[in-house]
Amino acid sequence: MSTFTETEIAKIKEYIQSRPEGYGLPRPFYHDELVYRADLEVFWRRGWLFAGHACQIPNPGDYFLYDVDTDSIIIARGDDGAVKAFHNVCRHRGSLVCVEPEGHVHRFICPYHQWAYGRDGRLITYRGMQEGLDKSQLGLRPVHVRDVEGLIFISLAETPPDFEQAYQEIAFYAKPQGFNRAKIAKIIDYDVPANWKLVWENNRECYHCNVNHPQYIKANFDHYNEDDTIGRLALQLHAVTTRSQEKWAKLGLAVTHTKTGMSEFPDPDTGRWYLANRTPLVDGYVSETMDGKQVAPLMGDYPDPDVGTLRIRTMPNFWNHSSCDHGVTVRLTPNGIYSTKVRMYWLVDQNAEEGRDYDLEKLLPFWQLTAEQDWDICKNAQLGVNSRAYVPGPLSTYKEYNVDRFLRWYLKELEKGISE
Amino acid sequence: MSTFTETEIAKIKEYIQSRPEGYGLPRPFYHDELVYRADLEVFWRRGWLFAGHACQIPNPGDYFLYDVDTDSIIIARGDDGAVKAFHNVCRHRGSLVCVEPEGHVHRFICPYHQWAYGRDGRLITYRGMQEGLDKSQLGLRPVHVRDVEGLIFISLAETPPDFEQAYQEIAFYAKPQGFNRAKIAKIIDYDVPANWKLVWENNRECYHCNVNHPQYIKANFDHYNEDDTIGRLALQLHAVTTRSQEKWAKLGLAVTHTKTGMSEFPDPDTGRWYLANRTPLVDGYVSETMDGKQVAPLMGDYPDPDVGTLRIRTMPNFWNHSSCDHGVTVRLTPNGIYSTKVRMYWLVDQNAEEGRDYDLEKLLPFWQLTAEQDWDICKNAQLGVNSRAYVPGPLSTYKEYNVDRFLRWYLKELEKGISE
Amino acid sequence: MSTFTETEIAKIKEYIQSRPEGYGLPRPFYHDELVYRADLEVFWRRGWLFAGHACQIPNPGDYFLYDVDTDSIIIARGDDGAVKAFHNVCRHRGSLVCVEPEGHVHRFICPYHQWAYGRDGRLITYRGMQEGLDKSQLGLRPVHVRDVEGLIFISLAETPPDFEQAYQEIAFYAKPQGFNRAKIAKIIDYDVPANWKLVWENNRECYHCNVNHPQYIKANFDHYNEDDTIGRLALQLHAVTTRSQEKWAKLGLAVTHTKTGMSEFPDPDTGRWYLANRTPLVDGYVSETMDGKQVAPLMGDYPDPDVGTLRIRTMPNFWNHSSCDHGVTVRLTPNGIYSTKVRMYWLVDQNAEEGRDYDLEKLLPFWQLTAEQDWDICKNAQLGVNSRAYVPGPLSTYKEYNVDRFLRWYLKELEKGISE
Repeated sequence: MSTFTETEIAKIKEYIQSRPEGYGLPRPFYHDELVYRADLEVFWRRGWLFAGHACQIPNPGDYFLYDVDTDSIIIARGDDGAVKAFHNVCRHRGSLVCVEPEGHVHRFICPYHQWAYGRDGRLITYRGMQEGLDKSQLGLRPVHVRDVEGLIFISLAETPPDFEQAYQEIAFYAKPQGFNRAKIAKIIDYDVPANWKLVWENNRECYHCNVNHPQYIKANFDHYNEDDTIGRLALQLHAVTTRSQEKWAKLGLAVTHTKTGMSEFPDPDTGRWYLANRTPLVDGYVSETMDGKQVAPLMGDYPDPDVGTLRIRTMPNFWNHSSCDHGVTVRLTPNGIYSTKVRMYWLVDQNAEEGRDYDLEKLLPFWQLTAEQDWDICKNAQLGVNSRAYVPGPLSTYKEYNVDRFLRWYLKELEKGISE
Repeated sequence: MSTFTETEIAKIKEYIQSRPEGYGLPRPFYHDELVYRADLEVFWRRGWLFAGHACQIPNPGDYFLYDVDTDSIIIARGDDGAVKAFHNVCRHRGSLVCVEPEGHVHRFICPYHQWAYGRDGRLITYRGMQEGLDKSQLGLRPVHVRDVEGLIFISLAETPPDFEQAYQEIAFYAKPQGFNRAKIAKIIDYDVPANWKLVWENNRECYHCNVNHPQYIKANFDHYNEDDTIGRLALQLHAVTTRSQEKWAKLGLAVTHTKTGMSEFPDPDTGRWYLANRTPLVDGYVSETMDGKQVAPLMGDYPDPDVGTLRIRTMPNFWNHSSCDHGVTVRLTPNGIYSTKVRMYWLVDQNAEEGRDYDLEKLLPFWQLTAEQDWDICKNAQLGVNSRAYVPGPLSTYKEYNVDRFLRWYLKELEKGISE
Repeated sequence: MSTFTETEIAKIKEYIQSRPEGYGLPRPFYHDELVYRADLEVFWRRGWLFAGHACQIPNPGDYFLYDVDTDSIIIARGDDGAVKAFHNVCRHRGSLVCVEPEGHVHRFICPYHQWAYGRDGRLITYRGMQEGLDKSQLGLRPVHVRDVEGLIFISLAETPPDFEQAYQEIAFYAKPQGFNRAKIAKIIDYDVPANWKLVWENNRECYHCNVNHPQYIKANFDHYNEDDTIGRLALQLHAVTTRSQEKWAKLGLAVTHTKTGMSEFPDPDTGRWYLANRTPLVDGYVSETMDGKQVAPLMGDYPDPDVGTLRIRTMPNFWNHSSCDHGVTVRLTPNGIYSTKVRMYWLVDQNAEEGRDYDLEKLLPFWQLTAEQDWDICKNAQLGVNSRAYVPGPLSTYKEYNVDRFLRWYLKELEKGISE
């Protein structure tokens, strides 16, 4: 049963229908409390969310927290070695059970009255309680969780959407990167003062890259589009992708995105919310770094540095760009209509040692600069669409097809979701 | 006439009925703006609120302010020596009349246009106003106030609940403590990020004391309950209480709470919202201090230090623990759904001099530590019950009977109050 | 069509009717979100707003921003030398076009995708967009703007109220001050924690001046009223105004407000929302400065310092007090129910040089002190009217006739406006 009233559903549908085809979203999508509530319900409480990296919790009893809206989730390594997820809420008086954002526990012991839960969430002891209670009904409430080659996804839904196809695709591409044998070199948190959809819209086009991302455009081909792919460029790209395919066909490491422009994603027609592939780097770049040079030991199964970049994206909250020597993950979490928490993770091989094998000042800048440029853009976009004078403008069919795809996907899922 | 619509009343009743007997409160009670509004209306605008200590305003013209929700109240000593209370709102243009949180006035003069009110609230002069106005109708609006042996209670209600029985009980127990001949040694203010009810729930049980309050449990018996009162303990308690009763029967200073466990309070059946009594201290403790030793001169009428502790509680915002040599008052004020302002007062005899007769570093820690441990618990409780995964859990019949009493009292008063 | 529902209109009308004649405003006008929304709609989105000074943007391409509620407005000097105003929202994806609060541009280039607009707002280039779009429909959306002898007014309305009569009156009085040949000596911004109407109510009476504004009352006559204008004072005022009129009749610089008390403004009967005139200064004062002495070179067309003060006020957001040597502008902008942003500007002749021709420590204090005294008053007024105990009080017919005029004007315009 929908959590929205008939009137609310009608209102949202009216908003949805007010979007002119091929144009941006109308103002209420960035400004209306009802839409924000619907976004939380439909996308954030029902979809699959990237929660963090399995390498953050290598040993049984290791855990970290992920907070989504009002909910705190414990992601932990169980005694069986598998990743578990629980609501971080004591079944007695409702206190947070884990107070620190990460740690290691023998048991999950609530700090309030010391109810103790096993690493599988079962209630083990509750000193001072009367007879006659059914302990088996008082375990930590479980959350759906999947570990995809070291990438942890959760769903707050009772019955989450199917994950198998996403699993297959992401696992295939992620495996050689060795996220399972990685370590976190750095985490940076941002409060981006923009609605989460503006962050995605910005992510879904490289029309803005030429002027805003001087570092990014040196390494990549995807900011070129059909309208500006000159002959010389097409030849370069062809050479790079052909070389990759000849070299890596057998190992499954060949680049799979062989055109200029960004990979088409998401897909409003099929509802596809995940995409993984490999994209080429410009000659002279073997890593997304300031000078294109490798800055850390090879990760995972890579036999040499010339593997382009691995790219994975899942709606509504995750993307990863990985080079031969390091990976960069971006996790989004909505924090009100006008605010998105962004956590960025830099990963390197688990045996790499800072100072010896890599330096943060070489590892971070490429994506740190690019990301901070984007957050600034998003801030100004939010401030602009707040205006009563804002009206949706036309999207470039050459350069913003993925913005259009994202908006159509979003509106379709939203319309479907609010009535469910 | 109720300030709530039929729909709102129905909604609140639905919440009330959704509480499983013997369990905690459902999530909306900690999360819903409507409930918070009802709480303000029913408990904070109609009940009796502890405002402060009479010893803060020893002389006519002395005043302090107490702010409750949007309202600012002046508590002042009148020319007749009695405590008065007024709304701190000029009858002319509505400005605050007293701007400083405490002070001394000859008259209450509004800083805006100098309308001048007597210490009894009557409008005395209003330079520049036309003839034909009825000055007698323009006095400061009075607030109900009672001074109970130095403890000041106010009610914002037009017709407050009966106070006589509360007066008798509190006055009897408070009198020998000499709050009227006390002075404030220290005030500490806290912003506790938790709903006011969570602060009370925490206050109403000592199930959490063993692990969370290492200082408190050394001095007291009430964290033991029926299920863990071993024989040795029962004997100790019996010895202490018997000695007290033999020693103090005549002076009325004997301990009256002679069992382990906390005194039963409040009472959902009778609606009783106040309770005063005397409780025993563990042998070796004559004061609730770190080492149990006396840290200041005897207060009030006490002939020697061996008087256990005086305890007074009134819903919705006050408790006091007093030993032979000092008293500690806690005053709660709601500050939004998720926040409670807490003011703590340490009192000693009026003639005690800091440095000579007492040191703050010996006076404060016992209750400062215990209180701050509690505020931390309350914060984590709020964060937990915010979760959509929170469901009320079972209360221990051994250890949380007073939580259950509080919740039943609260729900009953709420249900009654919203329709009035 | 009104943006308010029938129910909302009925509610606001109920509030309007609840004001007792000759008394202040009932509490909801300072406390109710609906009223605030109506205020924004009726006064701030439909009236004429002072935006800034033309001397801030002397050259074509110079601009500054003015933010009102959710909207950001660009005020710029066009190639034709005239002042233009546009919504600061790119017609493509809605980003802010100008990010810095002031600056100089060749073209307005959106930082997101570099859509470029001329200084007249027309879209000039949009690299990367497809054929078939109508560029002429994608210019920056214009905002109504008028430059009145260097004072810039805008209106966010589609069809703003008539400006011609206001223009004539303000232009006549402002011209000799030479705002067009001025420069900004200092800007100070304040966040005043009070509803914008409280700021105006305070501005519309000098009943509070005697005690609160020791500097102001030395220089002026208008804090005296019918009830306290003693003979000696009347004679002084008569002497000053007669001298002024004899001296300046020909040049049109004579004082026009020749009585004690403030000029009557605004006018609820005619809806008049602007007033300009010249008022006398006390003998010995030639400028509103701490000692009454001139502190900067003569401005504009003034032949000598003895020109009293120029005063201009326009509802809902502007007043200016100018002496022979400097002008002080106050611009209000609502920032929530309980908050008003205030920008104060001090202006001097454009050729005056700090350190040589004027010192800020002599230029600022008179109005800085007076203004900060007022912001403090407004803060306490808001805190008072927040109280549930607040009820409107009687206004002095001697001293607060302009508060009454303001309230009647406000209520009348509000009632009319919410149904439009």
